[in-house]
Amino acid sequence: MNDQQNIKPHVIGLDLGGTNAVFGIVDQRGDIKATTAIKTQDYNTAEAFVDASVHALEAIIEQTGGLDKIKAMGIGAPNGNFYNGCIETAPNIKWAHETTVPLAKMFSDRLSGLPVAITNDANAAAIGEMVYGVARGMKNFIVITLGTGVGSGIVVNGQLVYGSDGMAGELGHVRVVRGEEGRLCGCGRKGCLETYCSATGVARTAREMLSKTDRPSLLRDMNPEDITSLDVSIAAGKGDTLAKEIYEFTGRMLGEACADFATFCSPEAFIFFGGMVKAGDLLMNPIKQAYNETVMNVFKGKAQFLVSGLDGASAAVLGASAIGWEI
Amino acid sequence: MNDQQNIKPHVIGLDLGGTNAVFGIVDQRGDIKATTAIKTQDYNTAEAFVDASVHALEAIIEQTGGLDKIKAMGIGAPNGNFYNGCIETAPNIKWAHETTVPLAKMFSDRLSGLPVAITNDANAAAIGEMVYGVARGMKNFIVITLGTGVGSGIVVNGQLVYGSDGMAGELGHVRVVRGEEGRLCGCGRKGCLETYCSATGVARTAREMLSKTDRPSLLRDMNPEDITSLDVSIAAGKGDTLAKEIYEFTGRMLGEACADFATFCSPEAFIFFGGMVKAGDLLMNPIKQAYNETVMNVFKGKAQFLVSGLDGASAAVLGASAIGWEI
Repeated sequence: MNDQQNIKPHVIGLDLGGTNAVFGIVDQRGDIKATTAIKTQDYNTAEAFVDASVHALEAIIEQTGGLDKIKAMGIGAPNGNFYNGCIETAPNIKWAHETTVPLAKMFSDRLSGLPVAITNDANAAAIGEMVYGVARGMKNFIVITLGTGVGSGIVVNGQLVYGSDGMAGELGHVRVVRGEEGRLCGCGRKGCLETYCSATGVARTAREMLSKTDRPSLLRDMNPEDITSLDVSIAAGKGDTLAKEIYEFTGRMLGEACADFATFCSPEAFIFFGGMVKAGDLLMNPIKQAYNETVMNVFKGKAQFLVSGLDGASAAVLGASAIGWEI
Repeated sequence: MNDQQNIKPHVIGLDLGGTNAVFGIVDQRGDIKATTAIKTQDYNTAEAFVDASVHALEAIIEQTGGLDKIKAMGIGAPNGNFYNGCIETAPNIKWAHETTVPLAKMFSDRLSGLPVAITNDANAAAIGEMVYGVARGMKNFIVITLGTGVGSGIVVNGQLVYGSDGMAGELGHVRVVRGEEGRLCGCGRKGCLETYCSATGVARTAREMLSKTDRPSLLRDMNPEDITSLDVSIAAGKGDTLAKEIYEFTGRMLGEACADFATFCSPEAFIFFGGMVKAGDLLMNPIKQAYNETVMNVFKGKAQFLVSGLDGASAAVLGASAIGWEI
C-alpha cells in the first residue's frame, strides 16, 4: 500500500451488463461504501449512457468524500479490451452493438482525467478474487465464470493474461467435442465448452436426456423449453436421479477441460464464479473427480477447486472495482 | 544490457539429452564461441556426470577467456524445474531415473558459485527464440517442439509460464481425442496431441493409413515398423498422395489444437521447433489452414505461424544458454 493509495482510499467499479449498469465505490478491503445503478439499454448512444452514468455517479462520489478520494475506476464489460480501453462490439448492448466504444476514455474525460481501465467481466472476476477474494496471495490461478455463457480470467505470475490483442482468456470456447456432433455455439462454431457447461448448456443437457429416454424425472412436469439450470439443481436436491446425472455430466465436462487447462499454466487453483456455483457439491464433486482421473500425473492432486470468495450480489461490481487498484 | 553483462559477455548452455550432453559458450548475439560434449549415459551417478562435465567445460571456459567472462549457466533438460533447479525424475537418463537431482546447485557449487538455472528443453527453446531467434521483441508467443514427443514453451507478458509448480507448458498432453478411441500416450493416458503430432505420431499415422486401405504408396516398399516421419516427408516430396495426406492429417490436428491454445493467451505467433519442421509447407500449410478454419472469429488471422529461427544443429544449446541471460 503506497502513500497515494492511502490518500485515495476508494475506487469506482462499474459492472456493465445487458440489463443493468451497476456502480459501486469500494475501499481496499472490498467494502462497498455506496452503490447506484442505471438501465444499460435506456440510451441510444454511448454518449447518452455516459452522461446518465456520470450524473448517477456524482451523487455517490459526493456521499463518499468526493472525487479526490478516488484513485481510479474499473469497468467490467462484455468484450472490454484492457489494452485500448474500448468495448469492441458487444452484441447485447444496443449502443455498442456494431461499433467500438472507447468507454474508458469517455469516463475519464468526464471525471477530471481519473484513470479508468476496462476489461471483460470474467477478467474482472479474476482480479476481484486476487484483490478481495479466495485468490489473495496466489500468483497462478484460473477463474471460470458459469452463467449464460462460460468465461475465464487467467492469472500467470501474478498478472492477468490479456494476450497479444487484449482478448485472451476465452476458455469457454475451447472445443471439447470436435467434429459435427458438437453442439452449436453462439460463437458460430461447434463443440465449445460453453455449450455444455453454461447454465443454458445444463438446460440443453436436460432437454437432451429427457427426450432420449423415458426414465421418470421431476423435470418431466415442466415444459422442456422452460427448464433452467436452477430447476435441474432443485430437482437434484429432491433426489431426482436424472437431474443428478445432468450435473454429473456437466461437472465431468468441466473437470476434463480443466485437466487440459492445467497443461497450459499449472494453476494452484480453479475458482468457479457465477450463479451455477450455487449447485455446490452437485457440480464441484464431479469436476474434481473427472479432473483427478484425467489430468497428467505430474499435476494430479495439486490444484485446489474453489468457489468464488466474493459476495454473490455484489461480486461483479467488486471485480470491476478491483481493476482500479491494478492500473 | 547492463554493465555487468558487458563485463561478463558469455553464458554457458547445456543441452542435456538422453544420448549426448552438449555444452556451448555463447555470446549475447547467439554466436557459439566454443563447444564440447560428453555422453549422458556413461555415468552411474549425477555426481560422476557433473565431474565429467566440469572437466570438459574447463577446457572451453579457458579457451574463451575464463570463468570471469561468464555471467551464468542455463540447462535445458527433461523434466527440468526452473523453480527448484532440479531434474524431477527423467525416465530416459539413468542417473536421474528414479530420483530428483539438484543439477543447478551441483553445477553452481563446482563453478565457483556461478548462477545456474534449469528448465525443460521446450521452455529453453522458447527463451532461445525470444533472446536470439524469431521471437525477438515478442511478449506473447508459444513454441511447440516437434520431436520424439511434442513439447511447448509459453511466453506471456514477456515471461515464461512456469505455473504454480514449475511444470506448466505441457501442451503435447492436451487431449485432442477424448474417450477410448484416443491413441495411447507415453504419459499413460489416451488421445494426447503428442500421440498424433510427434515424429512417432506421424509414423503411427502412416502405419494406420497403410493398414486401413490398399491404396498404392511408396511407403509400401518399407517394413511398416521402420517408417519414420522423415520417410513420409521424402515420399510426399516425390508426389506420394498417401504420404501427403499423412502430413495433412498431422497438420490439421496441430492447427486445430493451436486454435484452442489461442483461447488461453492469444499469442502473436506459434513457433515450431525440431526436426519435423524440415517438412516445411507440407506441415505448415495444413496447420495454418486448420487454424484459420477452426479458431474463434476474434482471433482469426492474427497469429503468425513461424519456424524456429535458431540454427538446427545448435538450437538446443542456444536455447539452454539463453536461460543464462534471463536469470
